[in-house]
Amino acid sequence: MNAMSPQENLLDAFSEEKFEEVRALMEELHPSEIADLLESLPPKDRENLWDLIEPTLGGDVLTEVQDPVRSALLETMQPQEVADVTKDLESDDAADILQDLPEDVIATVLASMDALNRERLASILSYAEDSAGGLMNVDVVPVRADVTLDVVSRYLRQLGEIPDQTDNLMVVDRENHYLGVLPLADILTKKADTSVGENMIEESGIHADTAKHDVARIFEQRDWFSAGVVDDDNRLLGRITIDDVIDVIQEEAEQTVRSMAGLGEDDMFAPVLTTAKRRTIWLGINLMTALLASWVIGRFSDTIEQLVALAVLMPIVASMGGIAGSQTLTIAIRGIALGQISKTNSRILMNKEVAVGVLNGIIWATVVAVVASLWFEDKSLGAIIGLAMIINLIIAALAGALIPLTLKRFGVDPAIAGGVLLTTITDVVGFMIFLGLATFFLIS
Amino acid sequence: MNAMSPQENLLDAFSEEKFEEVRALMEELHPSEIADLLESLPPKDRENLWDLIEPTLGGDVLTEVQDPVRSALLETMQPQEVADVTKDLESDDAADILQDLPEDVIATVLASMDALNRERLASILSYAEDSAGGLMNVDVVPVRADVTLDVVSRYLRQLGEIPDQTDNLMVVDRENHYLGVLPLADILTKKADTSVGENMIEESGIHADTAKHDVARIFEQRDWFSAGVVDDDNRLLGRITIDDVIDVIQEEAEQTVRSMAGLGEDDMFAPVLTTAKRRTIWLGINLMTALLASWVIGRFSDTIEQLVALAVLMPIVASMGGIAGSQTLTIAIRGIALGQISKTNSRILMNKEVAVGVLNGIIWATVVAVVASLWFEDKSLGAIIGLAMIINLIIAALAGALIPLTLKRFGVDPAIAGGVLLTTITDVVGFMIFLGLATFFLIS
Repeated sequence: MNAMSPQENLLDAFSEEKFEEVRALMEELHPSEIADLLESLPPKDRENLWDLIEPTLGGDVLTEVQDPVRSALLETMQPQEVADVTKDLESDDAADILQDLPEDVIATVLASMDALNRERLASILSYAEDSAGGLMNVDVVPVRADVTLDVVSRYLRQLGEIPDQTDNLMVVDRENHYLGVLPLADILTKKADTSVGENMIEESGIHADTAKHDVARIFEQRDWFSAGVVDDDNRLLGRITIDDVIDVIQEEAEQTVRSMAGLGEDDMFAPVLTTAKRRTIWLGINLMTALLASWVIGRFSDTIEQLVALAVLMPIVASMGGIAGSQTLTIAIRGIALGQISKTNSRILMNKEVAVGVLNGIIWATVVAVVASLWFEDKSLGAIIGLAMIINLIIAALAGALIPLTLKRFGVDPAIAGGVLLTTITDVVGFMIFLGLATFFLIS
Repeated sequence: MNAMSPQENLLDAFSEEKFEEVRALMEELHPSEIADLLESLPPKDRENLWDLIEPTLGGDVLTEVQDPVRSALLETMQPQEVADVTKDLESDDAADILQDLPEDVIATVLASMDALNRERLASILSYAEDSAGGLMNVDVVPVRADVTLDVVSRYLRQLGEIPDQTDNLMVVDRENHYLGVLPLADILTKKADTSVGENMIEESGIHADTAKHDVARIFEQRDWFSAGVVDDDNRLLGRITIDDVIDVIQEEAEQTVRSMAGLGEDDMFAPVLTTAKRRTIWLGINLMTALLASWVIGRFSDTIEQLVALAVLMPIVASMGGIAGSQTLTIAIRGIALGQISKTNSRILMNKEVAVGVLNGIIWATVVAVVASLWFEDKSLGAIIGLAMIINLIIAALAGALIPLTLKRFGVDPAIAGGVLLTTITDVVGFMIFLGLATFFLIS
């Protein structure tokens, strides 16, 4: 975004309260760009800008904003307004918006819709938001395998319109069992007297209960643009298009980044109190681990009193362990998320990480040993810190690989709890080994 | 991946050297699943499994594996073998593979191809791998705006085939200037005697030099499945499809996660020496910052000697600052990457983060003050650590917001350098304030 982008012009006009100009500038922007602007504003300005958006655009913009911002905007709207902005949306997008509302408001909104829309939405709303059923769109064009392409062509021309972002028609049998897809390209290029069945690509559908994480993996692997969603009996329910899958991939990636920092699905400009409350828990957990580390140091107060150099050097041992461990941890978390780490190869990974820990441990332990020896003119102190560092880097590698594997086994997201567990171990072990070795060898 | 997945069966068969069974099981898998398997194996096993893959599948598998693994596999192949596996690939995928080879091998591979493929590939290879030109596919079907849909239909049927994953035809004028897209759906549903121009969706093309990061943003915002790539004169060069964009989004997300841990584009099972060498730099940088923190502590040796409790408590101040700061840092890095933080709102963000820092600082400083007072039976010590914590949490919030904004201004990726800069500041400031205040108020 450069200095003279339409977005910045708009924000300027908005802050100068030139609302006519804001409206004009908004017409140049894509709904998703307006959504980004809304997200970047503090709550009060956000509501004011929202009020300036044309009702016809409102639904598309709501589809694109992040959940917390959407909920806040929806709270300011009447059920009828919600019905108005959602009525022209694709069924999956409308369902996404409705899912954020309280039950009674959903009922009111549904009641104010026409029967067709209501029925479509109700069928999506019956599935969990994070399942294939919640992602799907119900406006599909199914064709039967036993008709000819010519019949399909005539049917489509009669229909006059196909839902946006259709690259394939869904092929079903007489009982609506899903068989595969017929690319639009084939209808245009293959012989008109051949049957749909001859030209279709056989595929199994995605079950409506499939987690959206798994839906994303399937789309990525298969390079699909769209896919059919089926029920327990393999009957076609709807289709998922790749634009919704991209949103899932984006969300997941952001979630990993945020989880590793102990952040929830945060709205960058959520009220200070909301943000403070969410983040404070993480700080509290970290405080407990820090107190544990302090308690360990406290056990060695007498040693430190005799040799203050230990207090000066001890953060180095803990910090290097933390860094090395989190490198291993990140690799392991990513490998688990992408399904590249399984029982078969987790041992190979662990052996490698320990080997890397030993190698880097030796290199940097030597450097630190030399620095410490020269600084405090004490070769034994140098030897002790070097030894402590090598041990801590090996423990860090083991912990970095074992923690996420173990958390995964217990069904806990390694990205959330992994980091705090790891630094607890590297801090406690680092202080304990360094101060323990020093007490044993250096203090009479 | 559950216990009995085809992947695990294959790995079992492979480790038992039942190669016929491996070949049979491989046929059940998608090329991307085979690619995942290759990535999860150590180098030697990987080459052995690679040798078992059918040549007709080889190209598709190579397309799906990560860059470092691909390079390693390519090194084991003759130019003619490379030419054979790439000849049936889409031009963008073939170019991706060739880009990993040395210049002279590329020349040999190109020479062994037929003229059409050679020309196509050469045109993609002339663009940077991380630009729209490097992502594009040159096998597009352009149509002129002034012909009727009926003419297009007949032309397509004559062609007999459209490249895979075509949802739109690219519309151009007589001089091949890009005008927009014509959805295949429209050819099938709109009146046959209307012109392409009447039905097309006007769009500006993506310039070939556009960075792939920006290409991904555009696709996400527009919900496109495919888009035209143009040169300086707006002439159509090729098209980008969303499956390649998904790969870009995935890569970027992973890159953020990896950068924040100081990891390069790492192959999970790269040789130990390669991995150790890459990671050691990061450890070295961290060691320098840890030594700086130690140096600060060293300035206060006399104080610590008189009051060992300070050595016991000081890691708490630094650690809480580090955690709070990295929460702000993560929010800011993410906001910058998604273009949600601009000049206009960076001040709002900063004010908010500082407010959160003050609030959480007060809460946890109070807790720590009480704990420290009780533990060491020293109320002044409690007051000092509480005060130091509040100050450090505010500094952490400021640093967490300012560091990425500043790095961004100097063109440095905040995800790479942000974390290490932040903890340097929170450690140094934390130790300095806590020990400084203690020296001033507690030591006579």
